[in-house]
Amino acid sequence: MQKNGRTVNNREIERKFLLRRVPDTLKRSRCYNIEQGYLATESAGRQVRLRKRGHSASLTFKVGRGSHREEREIKLTPKQFAVLWPGTAGRRLRKVRYEVPWDNVMIEVDIYRGRHAGLVVAEVEFPDSASCRRFKAPWWFGREVTGEKRYSNVRLALT
Amino acid sequence: MQKNGRTVNNREIERKFLLRRVPDTLKRSRCYNIEQGYLATESAGRQVRLRKRGHSASLTFKVGRGSHREEREIKLTPKQFAVLWPGTAGRRLRKVRYEVPWDNVMIEVDIYRGRHAGLVVAEVEFPDSASCRRFKAPWWFGREVTGEKRYSNVRLALT
Repeated sequence: MQKNGRTVNNREIERKFLLRRVPDTLKRSRCYNIEQGYLATESAGRQVRLRKRGHSASLTFKVGRGSHREEREIKLTPKQFAVLWPGTAGRRLRKVRYEVPWDNVMIEVDIYRGRHAGLVVAEVEFPDSASCRRFKAPWWFGREVTGEKRYSNVRLALT
Repeated sequence: MQKNGRTVNNREIERKFLLRRVPDTLKRSRCYNIEQGYLATESAGRQVRLRKRGHSASLTFKVGRGSHREEREIKLTPKQFAVLWPGTAGRRLRKVRYEVPWDNVMIEVDIYRGRHAGLVVAEVEFPDSASCRRFKAPWWFGREVTGEKRYSNVRLALT
């Protein structure tokens, strides 16, 4: 997960849910387009992802599965991004992300476009394991799909 | 193959040989230390490599096998490199590279260090397929190992 362009270098603790319905607050939420693609992926969730979020570009390395993953991210200049992006051909996806504040966390609602239009998921990131376990999902969340390969972005981009 | 820090964005045409013996000209050749590691690798030669060559750092995406490969490379700032490098732990190698001019080409002689000390290979890059086929190896070259997985840098870094 990208933190507003900051360089991130640590463990991410995150849960993912399908959405039962889209909350009314969505219209008032900040949103932006995301386009991302994968240069290379391995089993065990090891991957190198390129992402363009609005006008900001990044390269992210992730490894690990489930709710706890290691993540390393750098910002890319437009030129660096342009050089690498063609390497993700056939391994891309597009979505619109809404940032919905909820209790003490930020819920990211992703509405997929293109081949996966119709899929809507929510991701919640936590500062520590305790808050991750304690999280009470809002009523508009559906089934939890944390760690389910079928809903991983890598899988969606490759299939 | 890194071209003296230039950003490279195209097909690379390259052959690789074991070295029968080290040429006398090696002592007079330009040389530098290379340390590289792999963030992720797939079959079909798809890989994302980080490399430090002297004080210059780069990230390279490659795909394809054998003498013809697609390659995309960007320079990294020291800070970008420092963020990503820990992701290559356990997937690294070190070598000293000598640049030996020969006829109209530059031969790169790589003397491996660490776990693979004793291995010495030469790589030659060509501007086109015709010069690649026509190349006459110098007498101090040994067997050609172009495309042999055993001598790929990825394989050497992972084993």
